[in-house]
Amino acid sequence: MDAVNLAEKLALFDDRWAPKIVAEMNGHKIAVVKVQGEFIWHEHAESDDFFLVLGGRLAIDLPDGTVELGPGELVVVPRGVQHRPRAAELTELLLIEPLGTANTGDAPSDRTAPEERL
Amino acid sequence: MDAVNLAEKLALFDDRWAPKIVAEMNGHKIAVVKVQGEFIWHEHAESDDFFLVLGGRLAIDLPDGTVELGPGELVVVPRGVQHRPRAAELTELLLIEPLGTANTGDAPSDRTAPEERL
Repeated sequence: MDAVNLAEKLALFDDRWAPKIVAEMNGHKIAVVKVQGEFIWHEHAESDDFFLVLGGRLAIDLPDGTVELGPGELVVVPRGVQHRPRAAELTELLLIEPLGTANTGDAPSDRTAPEERL
Repeated sequence: MDAVNLAEKLALFDDRWAPKIVAEMNGHKIAVVKVQGEFIWHEHAESDDFFLVLGGRLAIDLPDGTVELGPGELVVVPRGVQHRPRAAELTELLLIEPLGTANTGDAPSDRTAPEERL
């Protein structure tokens, strides 16, 4: 059982919007991801969606507004709620979702990322 | 849906070993906790146990060794594995466990904390 250093894991890749699994817990994947620019609108019908900002700033557009997050701030988007993450600058996140959950939820596209482990 | 600022939540209390729930996700509680000193040996038969160090340093004693964690480091202790968290200095953690999981697992005592929300 090893400690996972999030900064060390983030230093291992540079692609954007492609989460890397660093640990698993109760059927969920714990992943780090680098994001920049605008993602797509999507929802996860079967799962809440956990975002914790490690560095940078994340905006999550919602049907009725936008949540803004800085380092050390988290939000849980409830299942079934449409959302669009976006980041003006390079932003690093910790994500938690059930294993098997696609990053693009109900909106598969060329933005859909395979499950990848670091 | 509001952003949760972890530093702001941690500033709201000072007791030790008493997790405060700040969000929920897929039946799990997301909690912050301040710890210092030695906890008890325990295990959670039904759940993995997620620890992310936000500040300070955490040691987790295991049957066959010790995992040491600093800020930005996480570990998942698998279900059924005996462990004893301890911290020489004041240490702040993000914890994730299923709602209803006792902090003392299979070893209820006066260290068992009620589920408390911030």
